[in-house]
Amino acid sequence: MTLKMYDLAGAEPQRRFSPYCWRTRLALAHKGLAVETIPWRFVDKAAIAPSSQGRVPVLVDGDRWIADSWTIAVHLEEAYPDRPSLFGGGGPALSRFCSACADDLVVRITPFVLRDILDRLDEGDRDYFRASREKRLGATLEDVVADREAKAPAFRAGLAPFRATLRDQPFFGGERPMYADYALFGPFQWARCISPFQILAADDPVAAWRDRMLDLFGGLARSAPGYDLPAAG
Amino acid sequence: MTLKMYDLAGAEPQRRFSPYCWRTRLALAHKGLAVETIPWRFVDKAAIAPSSQGRVPVLVDGDRWIADSWTIAVHLEEAYPDRPSLFGGGGPALSRFCSACADDLVVRITPFVLRDILDRLDEGDRDYFRASREKRLGATLEDVVADREAKAPAFRAGLAPFRATLRDQPFFGGERPMYADYALFGPFQWARCISPFQILAADDPVAAWRDRMLDLFGGLARSAPGYDLPAAG
Repeated sequence: MTLKMYDLAGAEPQRRFSPYCWRTRLALAHKGLAVETIPWRFVDKAAIAPSSQGRVPVLVDGDRWIADSWTIAVHLEEAYPDRPSLFGGGGPALSRFCSACADDLVVRITPFVLRDILDRLDEGDRDYFRASREKRLGATLEDVVADREAKAPAFRAGLAPFRATLRDQPFFGGERPMYADYALFGPFQWARCISPFQILAADDPVAAWRDRMLDLFGGLARSAPGYDLPAAG
Repeated sequence: MTLKMYDLAGAEPQRRFSPYCWRTRLALAHKGLAVETIPWRFVDKAAIAPSSQGRVPVLVDGDRWIADSWTIAVHLEEAYPDRPSLFGGGGPALSRFCSACADDLVVRITPFVLRDILDRLDEGDRDYFRASREKRLGATLEDVVADREAKAPAFRAGLAPFRATLRDQPFFGGERPMYADYALFGPFQWARCISPFQILAADDPVAAWRDRMLDLFGGLARSAPGYDLPAAG
């Protein structure tokens, strides 16, 4: 039976940009599991009500509705133990900090891309998005991204632990990508899919890793509509 | 044959405060390996010359001189495979990012404790320490730590990934500590041993984890002279 996943979409159904959904999408590919992704908008709370909460990703695996990207990853590892491991032989614990750092990376990328998201959203999501984000952040979307060029050097300098790791190994998981990579890649893919702003310098080793990530699974992430691709919705 | 480790010391030989040496010290304890620690000062470059570089920790294992805390950890795992694993079943790769984040944590704690180190150093190290650090940072030790009370809230907020991880599990390694814990604990132990400044709020879950770390191996880290203990050198 094919798994189903509710996946945040923009105005065009195929523009999938959630950093959390991308983790799950790549984790499913790592496990070699086929998935039917269902485009979902912020206001479609009813569609995912069986998950008892209001955010995506939501994975439907048989009669189980599972929310939260980390919970989904742990579920996939437990439910499909014969498939390639997402966490390596040591279990999920060591990947938990990488997942938390990836959440933090979403926060750190927000001041560069937040306003651009609005232009890519479905009409019905725009008021919700602006109101919910401005309330959460205590600032207008426009103020959040003000002076982003000036803020970029500090953001890039803050990626020192990424560069140090990637100096020793091609992926955070080692010679091959693991869940740590999918988690940490999510925020970069988010930015790529909804903003023209280049958060990484072209010669940054982190950009080279992002490129390797875009190539995985037959170019799964690369084939996703990025900001520059023409809208086709 | 007992291992030997060159371990940064202050004016009192038993004041051991290097964040990098603490990683190694705890990694050795995790492996159940006895070690003779040799107090070392910044200017004692000759003593560790066989390691072909000028920093500690340096581990002497038989006729091998090994520098760099990460390299030492990988060596211990390879040389003593029958002892408890530092990295879990998946090998060292997933711990590499934690080690890099720990290096970054030293940078982030520096603005709170750097000047205090000077007062705890051996007389012969003080000029070297001031000159080398002021050159590296482009500021006086005093300027580096200016307004540290005002900077503390932002530092503490930046520990969000630590708190998120520790909400799910008692250690970064999971139910039990692993090398990721020793790496990330090092900077906090550094601060504890050389500065009266309290970088963590008492009710922070990160402080509770630090407490658990201080208890490990019969209180190995807790027994180290902290800032408040009377000097006995």
